Amino acid sequence: MAASGTVAARHRVIVVGGGFGGLLAVRALRRAPVDITLIDRRNFHLFEPLVYQVATGALASGEIASPLRGIFKRDRNVHVLLGEVTGFDLAGRRVTVGSMPDDEGARDFEYDSLVVAGGSSYSYFGHDEWRPFAPDVKTLEGALYVRRRILAAFEAAEYEPDAERRAAWLTFVVVGGGPTGVEMAGQIGEIARDTLRRDFRSIDTRSTRILLVELGDRILQDFPPRLSERAARSLEQLGVTPLTGHRVVGIDGHSVSVTAGTGESEVVPARTVIWAAGVVASELARFLAAESGAELDRAGRISVGPDLTLPGHPEVMALGDMVRVHDANGNVVPLPGLAPVAMQQGRFAARAIRDRLRGRVPGPFRYRDKGNLATIGRRRAVADIKGLHLSGLLAWLTWLFVHLFYLNGLQNRLFVFMRWTFSFVTHGRGARLITGTPGRPEHGSAGQTPRVD
Amino acid sequence: MAASGTVAARHRVIVVGGGFGGLLAVRALRRAPVDITLIDRRNFHLFEPLVYQVATGALASGEIASPLRGIFKRDRNVHVLLGEVTGFDLAGRRVTVGSMPDDEGARDFEYDSLVVAGGSSYSYFGHDEWRPFAPDVKTLEGALYVRRRILAAFEAAEYEPDAERRAAWLTFVVVGGGPTGVEMAGQIGEIARDTLRRDFRSIDTRSTRILLVELGDRILQDFPPRLSERAARSLEQLGVTPLTGHRVVGIDGHSVSVTAGTGESEVVPARTVIWAAGVVASELARFLAAESGAELDRAGRISVGPDLTLPGHPEVMALGDMVRVHDANGNVVPLPGLAPVAMQQGRFAARAIRDRLRGRVPGPFRYRDKGNLATIGRRRAVADIKGLHLSGLLAWLTWLFVHLFYLNGLQNRLFVFMRWTFSFVTHGRGARLITGTPGRPEHGSAGQTPRVD
Repeated sequence: MAASGTVAARHRVIVVGGGFGGLLAVRALRRAPVDITLIDRRNFHLFEPLVYQVATGALASGEIASPLRGIFKRDRNVHVLLGEVTGFDLAGRRVTVGSMPDDEGARDFEYDSLVVAGGSSYSYFGHDEWRPFAPDVKTLEGALYVRRRILAAFEAAEYEPDAERRAAWLTFVVVGGGPTGVEMAGQIGEIARDTLRRDFRSIDTRSTRILLVELGDRILQDFPPRLSERAARSLEQLGVTPLTGHRVVGIDGHSVSVTAGTGESEVVPARTVIWAAGVVASELARFLAAESGAELDRAGRISVGPDLTLPGHPEVMALGDMVRVHDANGNVVPLPGLAPVAMQQGRFAARAIRDRLRGRVPGPFRYRDKGNLATIGRRRAVADIKGLHLSGLLAWLTWLFVHLFYLNGLQNRLFVFMRWTFSFVTHGRGARLITGTPGRPEHGSAGQTPRVD
Repeated sequence: MAASGTVAARHRVIVVGGGFGGLLAVRALRRAPVDITLIDRRNFHLFEPLVYQVATGALASGEIASPLRGIFKRDRNVHVLLGEVTGFDLAGRRVTVGSMPDDEGARDFEYDSLVVAGGSSYSYFGHDEWRPFAPDVKTLEGALYVRRRILAAFEAAEYEPDAERRAAWLTFVVVGGGPTGVEMAGQIGEIARDTLRRDFRSIDTRSTRILLVELGDRILQDFPPRLSERAARSLEQLGVTPLTGHRVVGIDGHSVSVTAGTGESEVVPARTVIWAAGVVASELARFLAAESGAELDRAGRISVGPDLTLPGHPEVMALGDMVRVHDANGNVVPLPGLAPVAMQQGRFAARAIRDRLRGRVPGPFRYRDKGNLATIGRRRAVADIKGLHLSGLLAWLTWLFVHLFYLNGLQNRLFVFMRWTFSFVTHGRGARLITGTPGRPEHGSAGQTPRVD
């Protein structure tokens, strides 16, 4: 059906999503004889494993984000498109992009191969009304908002004469005992006991209470039980109380209600809640499922074959947090929701496209597990590397090294390294600003109150 | 009238405003036998001369801001209060602070000495309806919004098929030919011709048009005419067209209307406008005038005596951009609206308080003019130092050195120095993110369009 008389066009690849999966797919394709369009709603790649450090003022936002155009500026066959994908036409091999920066309405882009890597976000267990009171630390904007909330809570406590209300300002609840929740709780502990210790005059920040609520019977469930136990003890040393086997049943901005497995429930007065639980797949999974008839699981993930393709569409691959991979027998391949999985799948997708261009059929995707790391604080971390269990200083150094290694760009690596060095030496945090309101810096202009809460 | 039977309390000083003036006043008082309360609406001191570099992605916001509590953490007699001053009671020696972080209503604080350093903001020549279309680069929030607007304009141009509309996205208007406007225009020129040159595929960013609108007959009017002329030529080399003798008469988000002195007017299609003109004093000046009967000038500045005190209130001093200083004969002392003036006045105010505590009468404030600097771009700057006129590389190096020297804190100095070094070597800019919407990073979730415009 190719139009006769036209020059044979280059193979067109569209990659949706500039996260770990999409980025690695484009990287691995840039020397191939293809034209690539990378579509993202953001103009930057975000190093998600360190977003929580922005939320605690340890890093500045630019240090964990790299502009996509900058990454691919030398690759003339890579086009970056800032826009939001609103639909797929798999039969017509088209992607619809709406809401581009100029608001000129939707536009369709054609592909020969499609790679969709839309990632995931947090669900609120069906309680979207909790969202305004419990910001997440998965996006840069969420992290900056959390940073503002945490710092403003200490400010509010400093001038609160009532002891009970002051205690509510000094109580922080982190929901979700996975790596992000654990890291977040540990960092708040360090801020309270270390960074801000001498900053205030009325309150003792060391009296800060931090609750880490986890539904399961232990934190860090992807780790061996022994490391979960060590992490829990490290957290306790930082003033964090892990509430395992507890479920959040209410959040209203002034308190958090939790229920234990035994059915007892408790209302904890707490003004600051941070959400890091309940991953759901990007809506792109639903769009693809509607077009291809592929299954969606309860977390909204779409089923893909061993080679990450959609049923009946060898030219369409999906990967990362938004998919559930099946083996040749139709059984689900258990894969953790981690950056390395997405990165390996991105590289696999690129290789599969190159294989198909050469007439080869790609084999199945195989995950190479390089280990699992979580940090809790200064010199405190846990690591599970191919059965080798580490905790303490050695795990912490491993964590530092691995994260610096995978960070994008020399400048960001150097800056993050320097921030960490400064924080380590000074017990400080470099980016402790309460910002967020367009307004004037001077005092007294009515109606321009800084939005610190 | 002192209450008998009580221990003699320490002299209480309230300093309003953590800008250059307020910060220097508190610094110079921290070893004095006084209790100091520093009140600011923000939790950080902002290095205002470099805010425009945040607007262009050259620096990250944290690098030019220092948390006030951190600066004074070791000074137990300094209390930092995050809140907005909403009134003064000079007779009762009280400051009213409303809108503290916990929103618990207004609270009064008593003083024995008061120093008010509220700074200034930009007026819109009485056209507040232009404000949404022409953000300023005087606050951190304004600068981050400008950064988003500039970067999004290039994104929009890249996907705009219509040549006329594309040209409007690639036209930038900077209003105000003072140092900030000149620096801003020069930086946009560098972004277009240098930083982004290889980032796009459809547009040639070097075709970007930048207009610098100035009402007066030359830019940089605080400098000698010869340096204004050199600055204008440097700007032209970066693609900036200085429109001196022009007045902005309309801004609507799609175009800017300007009128020349001859009466001719022109409508320039331009989607991005940046405001850097028309300084007005903080509203605190008006509050103080209402209480003391001191005069206000057209820019809202309050008249203070040779020793910066308000008439009839030797215990109240005001300083910086919000005041007009009079000499002993009642004549206005001409002072530029620059950081060094505020800094010297802040130190003067501290010394005056110490003098009065020892029963001495302070002399008049005298400004020591150390010179005037403005940068235009890479290796381009002008300097007027005690009659010595520099331009080009030497002026630029002087500018770099002076700004690094006055920046607060070792960490920020080091980071800014490194950013500049990286930018110089790579022709890049470290912090080129379009952020601003709380939302999810993945694609396709309806109703969560990134606010890039």
